[in-house]
Amino acid sequence: MNREELLFSVRSLARSLDAVAIAHIVKHTPPSDLVEALDILNTEETLSLLMTLKPQARAELFAHFSEARQDALLRSMPREAVVQLFEHMPSDDRADLYNRLSDEAKEKLLPALAKVERDDILRLASYPEGTVGSVSTSDYVQVSPRMTVTEALVHIRATAPDKETIYVIYVLEDGHKLLGTVSLRELVLADGKARIGEIMRRDPIFARAQWPRAEAVELIRRYDLLALPVINGGERMIGIVTVDDAMDIEKEQDATQLARFGGTATLGGPDLDVLASPFSQMFKVRVFWLVILTFFGILTSTFVAAQEEILTQMIVLAAFIAPIVDMGGNTGSQSATLVIRAMALGELKLKWQDVWFIIKRELPIAAALGAAIAVLEVILAYFAKGVGFDVLIVVGLSMLVCTVLGGVIGALLPFLARRIGTDPATLSSPLITSVMDLLGVFIYFGIAYAFLGELLIGNAV
Amino acid sequence: MNREELLFSVRSLARSLDAVAIAHIVKHTPPSDLVEALDILNTEETLSLLMTLKPQARAELFAHFSEARQDALLRSMPREAVVQLFEHMPSDDRADLYNRLSDEAKEKLLPALAKVERDDILRLASYPEGTVGSVSTSDYVQVSPRMTVTEALVHIRATAPDKETIYVIYVLEDGHKLLGTVSLRELVLADGKARIGEIMRRDPIFARAQWPRAEAVELIRRYDLLALPVINGGERMIGIVTVDDAMDIEKEQDATQLARFGGTATLGGPDLDVLASPFSQMFKVRVFWLVILTFFGILTSTFVAAQEEILTQMIVLAAFIAPIVDMGGNTGSQSATLVIRAMALGELKLKWQDVWFIIKRELPIAAALGAAIAVLEVILAYFAKGVGFDVLIVVGLSMLVCTVLGGVIGALLPFLARRIGTDPATLSSPLITSVMDLLGVFIYFGIAYAFLGELLIGNAV
Repeated sequence: MNREELLFSVRSLARSLDAVAIAHIVKHTPPSDLVEALDILNTEETLSLLMTLKPQARAELFAHFSEARQDALLRSMPREAVVQLFEHMPSDDRADLYNRLSDEAKEKLLPALAKVERDDILRLASYPEGTVGSVSTSDYVQVSPRMTVTEALVHIRATAPDKETIYVIYVLEDGHKLLGTVSLRELVLADGKARIGEIMRRDPIFARAQWPRAEAVELIRRYDLLALPVINGGERMIGIVTVDDAMDIEKEQDATQLARFGGTATLGGPDLDVLASPFSQMFKVRVFWLVILTFFGILTSTFVAAQEEILTQMIVLAAFIAPIVDMGGNTGSQSATLVIRAMALGELKLKWQDVWFIIKRELPIAAALGAAIAVLEVILAYFAKGVGFDVLIVVGLSMLVCTVLGGVIGALLPFLARRIGTDPATLSSPLITSVMDLLGVFIYFGIAYAFLGELLIGNAV
Repeated sequence: MNREELLFSVRSLARSLDAVAIAHIVKHTPPSDLVEALDILNTEETLSLLMTLKPQARAELFAHFSEARQDALLRSMPREAVVQLFEHMPSDDRADLYNRLSDEAKEKLLPALAKVERDDILRLASYPEGTVGSVSTSDYVQVSPRMTVTEALVHIRATAPDKETIYVIYVLEDGHKLLGTVSLRELVLADGKARIGEIMRRDPIFARAQWPRAEAVELIRRYDLLALPVINGGERMIGIVTVDDAMDIEKEQDATQLARFGGTATLGGPDLDVLASPFSQMFKVRVFWLVILTFFGILTSTFVAAQEEILTQMIVLAAFIAPIVDMGGNTGSQSATLVIRAMALGELKLKWQDVWFIIKRELPIAAALGAAIAVLEVILAYFAKGVGFDVLIVVGLSMLVCTVLGGVIGALLPFLARRIGTDPATLSSPLITSVMDLLGVFIYFGIAYAFLGELLIGNAV
């Protein structure tokens, strides 16, 4: 069924509320497509449609809605249906949903659930946002090391319907201590009489629940895992992070890193979302950076204003301030992002030899770029404005120095950021530009005084 | 074994070349860790170590080296070992390796391989870089729809060792036409006598070999797939893209998007890599953008120079040029990246209502930000420099207008980029800043003339 047909079906089903047809379409449509198509209905219509489904199917579909839509649907949902949701939803999605309930709603909900579910929700929901624990699911398969392969397969068949993945099976002993893992592939290929404890892989790669979730994503990516076991402080296994969740987290992290590089890094709080963040938070974070950038701008402009003497005499110098200082910032922005990219791909690490290697590469490039643009600027200045030779030298030399300095500083900033433990993108492009503006005017007027200083003294006399 | 122990082992094994010990460590160490540890050996030492392994183990480990290291090792490898590599490497990695051989080396290699392998390499290697085909592997499991579940499991057991994944099984009919898919989970849970054709999922999600590889990554992410089947123009299945490869591609794409946003977008060619790109390519791409940015800078400075009249009279106006025009660029950089982030997360689409929605959100924020910074700047200008009231009005008003304009234009640019079919990050932060610089000076001097124009006429008289 293509998108048009799906939208048509959704509209007609919203009117007919034909339970059999709805169940059929839910069974045969990928949840992400169905949820997107349901966008055309309002909350009330969506809820009516959901209520025709059986609790299990309803909960599985519900888990695919965005957080905003889940919250809206929850507000109008009958209490019994809400309890059923929490009984049937995947454990990671329901822990997230639980955390978004009001304290009052939480108090009403918990007594209505069975102890097993209550404990599971409270455990997963207790992990702070952004940690590995907060993106873990407890829907994994566990076996004992004493089981045979055949017994394990029987157990897997019996428990599979509730599990996120049955392709990685976790071998636990009493107390939920993780001994090893075995893949479904290995079980299918193994001799049925072998014991799990003999064929399992020991010392599996794992993450701790309190680690930042980015570390779980990186482990999954680096070791090509389908799922990563999560251990808590008491060395108990509390859940897994699956590869599909890792891909979603990675997408969000990288998209957010770009936003940070545009100058919107939040120091500690949740990332800015142009649609979801409240006005006050959006204002606070953005004004913080703009104030810092303006501060640099004020320093720069104060310095420029103090050069009144030379400027009054050579007003044409003012015209070149912008192109010269911009070159430093633009070149720095280029080199910074190229270095960040190389770091993300694991090509560069926080080692002195990598720092030195990058400087050695960037220096000649920045020099060549600076020379090329300086020549261009000087030629244009001469033919277009008939600028004097002495000023041309100042402009050309400043352009070259600013470019080289900008390129090298830009390349070093990501290393500095990693050294102080922050994401390199926090040193945003506008920040790099503003810092280079300030350095740029120092260099420009420094060179101007060096070359044209005698002229001033001559004129003043 | 932790990192220190691994490095120690690698060093001692490089000396002893104890084949049994080497085979043991290869079997029990994740390939990515081992390859990283082998970094401390030079090419010759690494090669000696590799040659102690059996061809299959050697090829599997070889596939995990970086492209640069693979090429270096290949140059010193005996011819027979090279042929063995191509016989045993995973099909996607060997197609990539094949494409990096010289034409001469290719001609020498092909006759030494069996027809099956030759055809496989040539087919996968024929897909242009950046397409879905170029990241596909032909190591997938196929079954016939007429098989029973039990027969299929027997077939899987027999062919599994050579397959990237056995968790998604592809149901093909004669001519490699893809009929459906079935998961290992479903097979394990199903009745042994059921026919594959009855239990398979029809109309599977797929990608075409000539599509950009980013589309395969997005399909895998959106539908939580472990593998995505790839179809060629003749409706034949030619391979799969696995989720672990998708994660690696996603990482590279996002890291490159950040680099593009720093001002290094290549129009058509391969992305810039700060370590690998040759000097000439690095220079060409970066100078291209710097020339464009300088061009804007020249326009801006030419305009500013033409305002000699008002500047000579009110030299203090020159001091505020930078902070005011910078605000436009900084605010625009913030809003552009926030919009790009929302687009990447699927929150915004290329629809007029989304464009309108964003403008409605950005306008009040940008106005508030502009007002806040304008007040800050005006207060500082007054107390620090004793600037006159009339100039303060010009400065404050220009700041406000530039900020609002910058924020709104910045928010619209990603939509524009998507509309013309390019990655929004190509409109880099430096470009946004340069455009806003130009608009900024128009606004600033426009307002200056409007408010201070009479003064000039008065003075000139």
